[in-house]
Amino acid sequence: MAEKPKKPQKLRARLPRGLADRGAAEIAATRRMTETIREVFERYGFEPVETPAFEYTDALGKFLPDQDRPNEGVFSFQDDDEQWISLRYDLTAPLARYVAENFDHLPKPYRSYRAGYVYRNEKPGPGRFRQFMQFDADTVGSASPAADAEMCMMAADTMEALGIPRGSYVVKVNNRKVLDGVMESIGLGGEENAAKRLTVLRAIDKLDRLGAHGVRELLGEGRKDESGDFTKGAGLEESQISKIETFVNARAGVQLPIFAYAGSRDVLERLTDDPDKKENEYNIALKIWGWLRIAFEDSPLAVAGLDELVEIARLVDAAGYENRIIVDPSVVRGLEYYTGPVYEVELLLDTNDEKGRPVRFGSVGGGGRYDGLVSRFRGEPVPATGFSIGVSRLQAALTMLGKLDTKPEFGPVVVTVFDRDRVADYQKMVATLRNAGIRAELYLGNPKNMGNQLKYADKRNSPCVIIQGSDEKDDPAGPQVVLKDLILGAELSKLEKDRDEYLQKQGEAQTKVPLASLVDEVRKILDKHNVKWN
Amino acid sequence: MAEKPKKPQKLRARLPRGLADRGAAEIAATRRMTETIREVFERYGFEPVETPAFEYTDALGKFLPDQDRPNEGVFSFQDDDEQWISLRYDLTAPLARYVAENFDHLPKPYRSYRAGYVYRNEKPGPGRFRQFMQFDADTVGSASPAADAEMCMMAADTMEALGIPRGSYVVKVNNRKVLDGVMESIGLGGEENAAKRLTVLRAIDKLDRLGAHGVRELLGEGRKDESGDFTKGAGLEESQISKIETFVNARAGVQLPIFAYAGSRDVLERLTDDPDKKENEYNIALKIWGWLRIAFEDSPLAVAGLDELVEIARLVDAAGYENRIIVDPSVVRGLEYYTGPVYEVELLLDTNDEKGRPVRFGSVGGGGRYDGLVSRFRGEPVPATGFSIGVSRLQAALTMLGKLDTKPEFGPVVVTVFDRDRVADYQKMVATLRNAGIRAELYLGNPKNMGNQLKYADKRNSPCVIIQGSDEKDDPAGPQVVLKDLILGAELSKLEKDRDEYLQKQGEAQTKVPLASLVDEVRKILDKHNVKWN
Repeated sequence: MAEKPKKPQKLRARLPRGLADRGAAEIAATRRMTETIREVFERYGFEPVETPAFEYTDALGKFLPDQDRPNEGVFSFQDDDEQWISLRYDLTAPLARYVAENFDHLPKPYRSYRAGYVYRNEKPGPGRFRQFMQFDADTVGSASPAADAEMCMMAADTMEALGIPRGSYVVKVNNRKVLDGVMESIGLGGEENAAKRLTVLRAIDKLDRLGAHGVRELLGEGRKDESGDFTKGAGLEESQISKIETFVNARAGVQLPIFAYAGSRDVLERLTDDPDKKENEYNIALKIWGWLRIAFEDSPLAVAGLDELVEIARLVDAAGYENRIIVDPSVVRGLEYYTGPVYEVELLLDTNDEKGRPVRFGSVGGGGRYDGLVSRFRGEPVPATGFSIGVSRLQAALTMLGKLDTKPEFGPVVVTVFDRDRVADYQKMVATLRNAGIRAELYLGNPKNMGNQLKYADKRNSPCVIIQGSDEKDDPAGPQVVLKDLILGAELSKLEKDRDEYLQKQGEAQTKVPLASLVDEVRKILDKHNVKWN
Repeated sequence: MAEKPKKPQKLRARLPRGLADRGAAEIAATRRMTETIREVFERYGFEPVETPAFEYTDALGKFLPDQDRPNEGVFSFQDDDEQWISLRYDLTAPLARYVAENFDHLPKPYRSYRAGYVYRNEKPGPGRFRQFMQFDADTVGSASPAADAEMCMMAADTMEALGIPRGSYVVKVNNRKVLDGVMESIGLGGEENAAKRLTVLRAIDKLDRLGAHGVRELLGEGRKDESGDFTKGAGLEESQISKIETFVNARAGVQLPIFAYAGSRDVLERLTDDPDKKENEYNIALKIWGWLRIAFEDSPLAVAGLDELVEIARLVDAAGYENRIIVDPSVVRGLEYYTGPVYEVELLLDTNDEKGRPVRFGSVGGGGRYDGLVSRFRGEPVPATGFSIGVSRLQAALTMLGKLDTKPEFGPVVVTVFDRDRVADYQKMVATLRNAGIRAELYLGNPKNMGNQLKYADKRNSPCVIIQGSDEKDDPAGPQVVLKDLILGAELSKLEKDRDEYLQKQGEAQTKVPLASLVDEVRKILDKHNVKWN
């Protein structure tokens, strides 16, 4: 059967997967948030620097966790001179390039911060986007654990500046040196075991999600998940697995004040409130620490890493950040360029899971030391450490916590078009209001009826509209305008039908005033309803 | 001769051509600028909306002027489902997609604004980048010339809010309908002449650069430039060229107040200051306008376009923007999607060229009506008009005009490390200062000598440093710290060697104070030098 020829298809308006548009409320919330973060970072002496959205692919390097994906997680294209260019997948790799390129004239150590979008060519999912915003701070040129401790303290101060109360967040610290040292001590050192080490790190990273048993399976032969999919494991022997568990499960054995993550807010509070208890648990922690040091004494790397963690703990304690910054041996961090301390900010929200434990919102930021990243360009060691906030994720958390006011602001005053030949007059009223600092607009749609214009003003959340017909214009007392107070009008529509009150309010909601006092009368309405104007 | 094997090359730290990093002063200036623009746009009732950096290539469309370049001026790559994706080359095409996708729940007309980076795969040059920032406003859903007039007024208000005095900028308006109508009237209508029309538009666009004679050559056979390169012309006949000139050169014949661009600030001032003169030239302008209307009466499109221009002029006059917003028949605008009024903001800077005429800094923004862009998705007419500011270019202009304060702010207070075993104590001082709202940092470099630390503080533009050795710590009167006032110290080093004054200032520049009053004493120094703290 012959089909009718189809009409040429309209272009479909749609975005590629994993991308999203952002509306007014969300943009305003992000602005408030990033301003707060900026203030904290500046108080710490960090100064802004920005790099472009794309770079030479080789300058960015390949450090993303999901190397098995096409393009290795990065959006890339060839420039017209055939060189490969990639959209930045984080803000750290471009900073390393920037510092290397401008090394000689930068103060050292160099503290800097930046906010910007990054791009990942990954499979998108709920809450997982291919473009998202990060807010980073980095200190380049200091090998001191004090630089890492500072990052952790700044992360804690940022959370509190954003309104997250103490006890609802925790900064967890670990050290890649310890992880690498532990692996060295079970015979997984050397270049030839790099892939296996990565598998082990990824398994540890899943502790929160899969529990100790799931991690054990992933360290051994492998694990079948609920859907029946099988993930091949690292293939370690029992003795190797148990040594990794010694370290990773240190956090699970005892509730350690500085040195382990308690996993529960009331434990944290208890530690803060009871000085005797604190002293006691502090001693237990030190004892366990000493024990770990002995357990891995065959690995100088692990011992050095443990000592750095003790130094960080000592510094944050001295500055009054104990219990807000804690050591957690299960923190891994996905990016491959980390070489020393790694840290993660985790939020604990108010909801409880089925076992009554507070639900973790999870990580809203993190970072670590990346001593090799700048060195790639310089051929000399350049130590560096940095911290990155996942702005969109943190914003979602703050919204859940009610810390970001997302109530829409009032819209502009709308000047209606009663007589379409007099647009110039109405335009002039709008200009007068704007010049007085009042948000105002002319109705620019088809002015065929007043109903449409009032509907538009409602949709814009306008506090009041202005109408002038020929009666008002030619008033014997001089030109007048009608002001409709839409906020009062909305209250009116909800009112019980008490005739007197209704009529009185109705009178207030719509008034005739001289054109000459337009600005003053509009200001009165805005002030009455606490609508901001300049 | 056998060469020695080369060492593996270090990675070179460099950016692809046409990209740039941005430092602290530039970022601060951009922030101040965009905040001001935002305030003006919000006063006009526009609300923010943002779209991602890339979109489906077909959704963006192909509207860039340089279609002969590879990739047609756009950075593109294929998604893993083989669909083509491009980085946005402006903020208008993505907005059209956004409006089409969300058409039903947006207020109409829909006024919105956004700032963001755009990307052009063009040959970079001085001041011409492949990533640059635009700040756009658009009104979708209004066909009224009042919407175009509003854009022009908003552009003028924005310039003044940024500190550009009246008379140093001008908003020039033209209408694509007139240009298209003029071409229709000389036989260049229809799809088959599209390429030729484009050549004519590009020739007109070069009037400011090449003058009337150069444009005439480009409309005819072609033009050889000073380097001997030949540009092929549109190949028009004499009668066709002269009719185009009738229109385009209307501005050159008489200095028209509203309707033509005077090209010189003092003419603008004369028009404003002398009401008789103004009346007179206004009449001449109207006469010329009537004459143009007769010259192109065979083209209904040209006549409609001319009438729209008169309507815009009438509206901006009524709102008090005459002489700031003027019609200039040579304005073309490069993008191909414009369908009606087009406008351009031009800055006139204070310098004069060799003929004593004020030098034009040139366009810092522009826009126009694009009635076809949203319609591509909707299959129904959706009128729209928009305005785009070239943020980087405008910032360069404001910097030249001295309107952006680029003086570096003072850096943080630096707490030095005198005794490396006492980093925790120094860290605590830093935390105390920060908690009091004072920007402060710990010296994180190698603390081997105090000289390096003071040099670092100088490089950071620090107002003062804090030093505590064992003498101060163990002071019988309780722990002390030494405060070095670096601002006073710098004055000291410039001082004539008047011994008494020198000694007095030296005493003030370095003082010993109790550790317990650290915050108060630092505040005193900051206040003395007007350094901000919270």
